[in-house]
Amino acid sequence: MKKKVAIIGASGYSGEELVRLLLHHPHAELAAVTSRQYAGQTLAQVFPKFASHPLSKNLRFTEPKAELLARQADVVFLALPHGVAAEYAVPLLEAGCAVIDLSADFRLRSADIYKEFYAHDHPAPELLQKAVYGLPEIYRDQIKKASLIASPGCYPTSILLPTMPLLKAGLAKADGIIADSLSGVSGAGRKADADYLFCECNESVRPYGLPKHRHLSEIEEQLSLAAGSKVTIQFTPHLIPVNRGILTTLYLTPTGKAVDAEQVAACYQKAYGSEPFVRLLEGKNLPDTKNIVGTNVIEIAWRLDPRTGRLIVMSAEDNLVKGASGQAIQSLNLLSGWPETAGLL
Amino acid sequence: MKKKVAIIGASGYSGEELVRLLLHHPHAELAAVTSRQYAGQTLAQVFPKFASHPLSKNLRFTEPKAELLARQADVVFLALPHGVAAEYAVPLLEAGCAVIDLSADFRLRSADIYKEFYAHDHPAPELLQKAVYGLPEIYRDQIKKASLIASPGCYPTSILLPTMPLLKAGLAKADGIIADSLSGVSGAGRKADADYLFCECNESVRPYGLPKHRHLSEIEEQLSLAAGSKVTIQFTPHLIPVNRGILTTLYLTPTGKAVDAEQVAACYQKAYGSEPFVRLLEGKNLPDTKNIVGTNVIEIAWRLDPRTGRLIVMSAEDNLVKGASGQAIQSLNLLSGWPETAGLL
Amino acid sequence: MKKKVAIIGASGYSGEELVRLLLHHPHAELAAVTSRQYAGQTLAQVFPKFASHPLSKNLRFTEPKAELLARQADVVFLALPHGVAAEYAVPLLEAGCAVIDLSADFRLRSADIYKEFYAHDHPAPELLQKAVYGLPEIYRDQIKKASLIASPGCYPTSILLPTMPLLKAGLAKADGIIADSLSGVSGAGRKADADYLFCECNESVRPYGLPKHRHLSEIEEQLSLAAGSKVTIQFTPHLIPVNRGILTTLYLTPTGKAVDAEQVAACYQKAYGSEPFVRLLEGKNLPDTKNIVGTNVIEIAWRLDPRTGRLIVMSAEDNLVKGASGQAIQSLNLLSGWPETAGLL
Amino acid sequence: MKKKVAIIGASGYSGEELVRLLLHHPHAELAAVTSRQYAGQTLAQVFPKFASHPLSKNLRFTEPKAELLARQADVVFLALPHGVAAEYAVPLLEAGCAVIDLSADFRLRSADIYKEFYAHDHPAPELLQKAVYGLPEIYRDQIKKASLIASPGCYPTSILLPTMPLLKAGLAKADGIIADSLSGVSGAGRKADADYLFCECNESVRPYGLPKHRHLSEIEEQLSLAAGSKVTIQFTPHLIPVNRGILTTLYLTPTGKAVDAEQVAACYQKAYGSEPFVRLLEGKNLPDTKNIVGTNVIEIAWRLDPRTGRLIVMSAEDNLVKGASGQAIQSLNLLSGWPETAGLL
Repeated sequence: MKKKVAIIGASGYSGEELVRLLLHHPHAELAAVTSRQYAGQTLAQVFPKFASHPLSKNLRFTEPKAELLARQADVVFLALPHGVAAEYAVPLLEAGCAVIDLSADFRLRSADIYKEFYAHDHPAPELLQKAVYGLPEIYRDQIKKASLIASPGCYPTSILLPTMPLLKAGLAKADGIIADSLSGVSGAGRKADADYLFCECNESVRPYGLPKHRHLSEIEEQLSLAAGSKVTIQFTPHLIPVNRGILTTLYLTPTGKAVDAEQVAACYQKAYGSEPFVRLLEGKNLPDTKNIVGTNVIEIAWRLDPRTGRLIVMSAEDNLVKGASGQAIQSLNLLSGWPETAGLL
Repeated sequence: MKKKVAIIGASGYSGEELVRLLLHHPHAELAAVTSRQYAGQTLAQVFPKFASHPLSKNLRFTEPKAELLARQADVVFLALPHGVAAEYAVPLLEAGCAVIDLSADFRLRSADIYKEFYAHDHPAPELLQKAVYGLPEIYRDQIKKASLIASPGCYPTSILLPTMPLLKAGLAKADGIIADSLSGVSGAGRKADADYLFCECNESVRPYGLPKHRHLSEIEEQLSLAAGSKVTIQFTPHLIPVNRGILTTLYLTPTGKAVDAEQVAACYQKAYGSEPFVRLLEGKNLPDTKNIVGTNVIEIAWRLDPRTGRLIVMSAEDNLVKGASGQAIQSLNLLSGWPETAGLL
Repeated sequence: MKKKVAIIGASGYSGEELVRLLLHHPHAELAAVTSRQYAGQTLAQVFPKFASHPLSKNLRFTEPKAELLARQADVVFLALPHGVAAEYAVPLLEAGCAVIDLSADFRLRSADIYKEFYAHDHPAPELLQKAVYGLPEIYRDQIKKASLIASPGCYPTSILLPTMPLLKAGLAKADGIIADSLSGVSGAGRKADADYLFCECNESVRPYGLPKHRHLSEIEEQLSLAAGSKVTIQFTPHLIPVNRGILTTLYLTPTGKAVDAEQVAACYQKAYGSEPFVRLLEGKNLPDTKNIVGTNVIEIAWRLDPRTGRLIVMSAEDNLVKGASGQAIQSLNLLSGWPETAGLL
Repeated sequence: MKKKVAIIGASGYSGEELVRLLLHHPHAELAAVTSRQYAGQTLAQVFPKFASHPLSKNLRFTEPKAELLARQADVVFLALPHGVAAEYAVPLLEAGCAVIDLSADFRLRSADIYKEFYAHDHPAPELLQKAVYGLPEIYRDQIKKASLIASPGCYPTSILLPTMPLLKAGLAKADGIIADSLSGVSGAGRKADADYLFCECNESVRPYGLPKHRHLSEIEEQLSLAAGSKVTIQFTPHLIPVNRGILTTLYLTPTGKAVDAEQVAACYQKAYGSEPFVRLLEGKNLPDTKNIVGTNVIEIAWRLDPRTGRLIVMSAEDNLVKGASGQAIQSLNLLSGWPETAGLL
């Protein structure tokens, strides 16, 4: 029998992507979707693209009510803005649901850092120690036993997966790291904001949100854990005219002149050689978002530059899949005891 | 000495394009720009792209007040929604300004048809007979003497210029005309509407607004004038992922089997052979929006299909220039006695 | 045990899409892929996007040799240019393979019409009567028993599926039909031609290939079969800046004033109400390519225009899936006795 | 009387942009354009977009012959691949023409470094000392007196203008500089290469050419001159799906903790406060390629990051205008004694 899952906030881009993936999941059944804006409408009405699925004519969006959802589902995904997600997590956890939160609300261990970066008090600080950071390649064992998953942000995923193994292995220095990221427009969400109109984004490339983007908080917390010391990085996001995809270029410093390409390759091979969703590029191949869009794969390539001594690492992921909903389903699979790749290949 | 002009509603796409063109106009001086949203800010602040122009640091957006603008400018452009434009036209005309209206408010001769298509009473029906339809290639003489110009819509321009000469010359039948149009997203304006977000338009093509789009009212009125009989056409607009440009494909029926390619060519040559902004394509060339974007040119090509007997006419224009702001400046030039191409080449 | 299939010409866009679909097909095994250009390279090397599939490291592109492929596969897909496909079909059929040809070589019944439209003698006219036109919604029973499938062109699919039921039911006139189609750039194939460079297609919309596009031959043959009389249509293709998707707008004339919306709806419901890959749009919904890209679905909507008396029918499909490779796999499923939707949902 | 200019290699993107700008230049007359591929055709035939210009019907592309061009023009632009440009420069200079070369052939002072980066012997090393690097904001006086201008590359312009004043003023360290650049596809030229097809670039973002891109040679030579010591930088170019525009993000280290935002602002103000084509962004504004496309302007903004101590500088330019043809015309204006902005506003 399939496990019942619900999505609160299913009409945004991450929510829609959860719907897409869950409609074809072999072990999960989409039992409820909520949306204040579309309450009462069927899945087929709100998303014509899903209208061929048998469920789409019967499943209706409802108002998001925690107590009701707790009766309808065993696992609840929160695809909500930060600050709002926590309001639902508390009663759902109390009612015995597992919660997979795609917002930033439970990604940090410190309520103070949350307040510094998100400019309001944390709504449920008592849950911060309970939550597991949902990066399966790093925290697989903890996710399996968790009831509250804080699924990582899109930029953090694109930075952490390439960087953490190098820091853990002592191949790259923990200071001076630069992450230069390029994101598709879906990262801004489906909100009616003139900045994200077609004509404002098409034929446009622009940096934004520097030098202190909110995602720095979780990036630095995780990198610090990997390095064993406090890490502060430089992070510059840019908006580029594609629907989906993040391309991150990382500038790292090897810990010594003895660090060579083989060591880096061996480190990545050890960390990710068996990972189903990490693709280590070989030879002359470099990441390209078009090779991973729609999939849960992150591509990683690296180059040691003999002229500068730097280590350049590049990654490409779909911000809505590996950077959000696909990764959240990876966590669902782990905590449910299913094959990790279920519904994701 | 330059003539002073003002733009009411200068922060939308048509308004912005008027600003772009007027900043470099040899005979006009941009004396005032209005915007409720941006009142108090300089041109450079609202439109960084104009920041290199000397005027941009000093010219500030103001609240739109007709009496004040009447003192600041000799000619006032209205880049406002229909219904709102008429409210400004009345006092400005009374104060002695010439008014060039880019909305639909004065394009029709009949207040009844206006109400049928725009769903509200016409706000100033007494002005309908006074207004001149600002299609310079057709109404040049009237525009020269007008004080109220109703500048044509973007779709109508792309349909009327290719069709009117054929109807006037009796080469194409007045009934059964089909116009299939493809428009860039700027046609929807700079309003924060989720339908026009980048991710909703990019990698998307869709028809909309059929079968009774508002622009049909002015298209059919003008075609009826050209044909000397009531014309009803089929019109299907589509939204395509480009910023600018309209490509219209017209399906016409020659009036008889004797109509041949040379007659059509001669008809267009007579109508537009000396027109600076109509480009009649020769040989195998077909219209392409990329060849006219940013210019006031409309490209026209045609094919007689021996298999079906139909005459296919295609046009390409920039919806914001020949379809809106450039054409409005053509009218400005005409009513001011300047060379018609001033500021437009 | 899985059935072995091969793809000749697997490096073009249709071939790549066949690979994508067949790698996840539950009953078919991709046994061979050929490409003159890439012979010797693995699937992972040529298409990094498939590198996560276990087969991608072992399956190597080979030179296309019919006798060899006949030993490797039971069914062979030909994703080759017209004229070339027939050269492979003959020996493969003789060797006992089923052949699913995505080129135009076997789509027509008449070698004369082939020569008229393709400008060379048909390379294997004796096979024309043997081939079945691979439009499953129309020729399902024949496909089940066929050994040579002529999979339809992308434009023809987008025109035939919406039109044939209306002609068969006598609701629309067989003469005067107009099809105005908009296609994404992948329709031009992966050939290094300056016309299809990014900068030549982006921010561009253009008609081409009118008035006598090659696809007219198969469109008119099929429509004539549906109507029971010779049909000649008007067809205008346009190139628009999306990767994938065809949006076709059809202009039809009802056979009488008694034809109403309910009759049209009933006709489509009868023809396609149970079809898994035809989505009849209801209410205010209109087709949008973004709702079907990557799927084997064709969306169809229609409007009766009381002003003109015309029937407007619109369809949207992915030119590489329902318009090519997905539809070819539908035929594979049928002739193999598998569920028609296998590998396509 | 106008000065006569010619363009060798006028059919590529840089050549086309030179044509566009020179057709409207107040002091220059386009006397000849060459193209092996299009010899014999008129400007209107090759570039329909220029067909409205009176010259377009009469000016025909010719074969590129130096001796003939030397008689037709006083100044000759070379829009040719590196290696080829030098072959024309030598005879043209001998014949008394001024030469403005848009290729890389004369940008370096050292023939050895040329060979290291371009992989062939320099074709005319004796001219390297004669050539002036055509960056007007830096070498204005030398350009005025030069007869051979080496117009800078697109990436170098986007990196040098923001960086050189900081190095000269001693505000930023000369070592450890990182330049992360994003370029539109026109940077790859109008060559029929499958890598630059629409479907390969649209919905794709990818790094390329790292870690040793050819443009590093001129970037490092110029930065070394500014710093007074040998500079080696990190440079990562990326391809993004826009037609035009380069966005560069630079990571610099202030020379001391005393370096503050006011000093950086004062440095840029001193260097560029009066420059017509450098726009220093104020307040919260950040560069956006859509604000400069089609213009000769480069936008520059900067942020001091108190968390990392780094100085982030960002620039946006049109790779075909300020990064190529517009800048070349700036040099034409300077060496001709015309206003520097002639034909560029």
